[in-house]
Amino acid sequence: MTAHRQRAAATTSHRTPPVHTDPGDVPLETALLALADPVRQSLVRELAGAGDWERSCGSFDVPVTKATLSRHFAVLREAGLLEQRDAGSKRLNRLRRAEFDEHFPGLLDLVLRHHAEGLGAG
Amino acid sequence: MTAHRQRAAATTSHRTPPVHTDPGDVPLETALLALADPVRQSLVRELAGAGDWERSCGSFDVPVTKATLSRHFAVLREAGLLEQRDAGSKRLNRLRRAEFDEHFPGLLDLVLRHHAEGLGAG
Repeated sequence: MTAHRQRAAATTSHRTPPVHTDPGDVPLETALLALADPVRQSLVRELAGAGDWERSCGSFDVPVTKATLSRHFAVLREAGLLEQRDAGSKRLNRLRRAEFDEHFPGLLDLVLRHHAEGLGAG
Repeated sequence: MTAHRQRAAATTSHRTPPVHTDPGDVPLETALLALADPVRQSLVRELAGAGDWERSCGSFDVPVTKATLSRHFAVLREAGLLEQRDAGSKRLNRLRRAEFDEHFPGLLDLVLRHHAEGLGAG
């Protein structure tokens, strides 16, 4: 397992591979906190409007630094909302919509229906 | 306005009357944050299992101080989830289920279905 992880890291980039959490292992508190943040709501809405693996991490238009954006992606992974994989120098993203819906029915839909309050952008 | 508030406070008790927020004026972020906390989840579940105005503030069995409990009630009021009124020395509570559901459909149900994770109680 460790050897496999090291090999994966070596073949992709200088970054450590993303760690994922299955939505079934996510406490309700974690799911709600992940979706409460306006920037993460914006990321989730953009992902919902794109196809799986279409969006790279650098393609999101949110008013935060790169480090903060990385932290937001980590929170979304820990909440079972986001799957990421490295492809060359890019890290690609997929919203785990079906898996998340199975464990938290209606929650993601609620966020996707609401406008991006607090970001100043419609 | 100030005179009115002072009079209202004088006729009920030593406390200032509770201030309420309509669920329609509550941002999604506020609603999600209010329901993310395990203690507030527990309060909401207990309220959902009781009739309107049946439960007084002192009747909840949660492992927090009185001051912390007051703060949790305030957060629930600000999220449009709780209505309170003073009756003699007691403050009575009502879950604003229908009004909240209208603006955040499915969210309260999701919380009520989940167990009280993080509280150590089933």
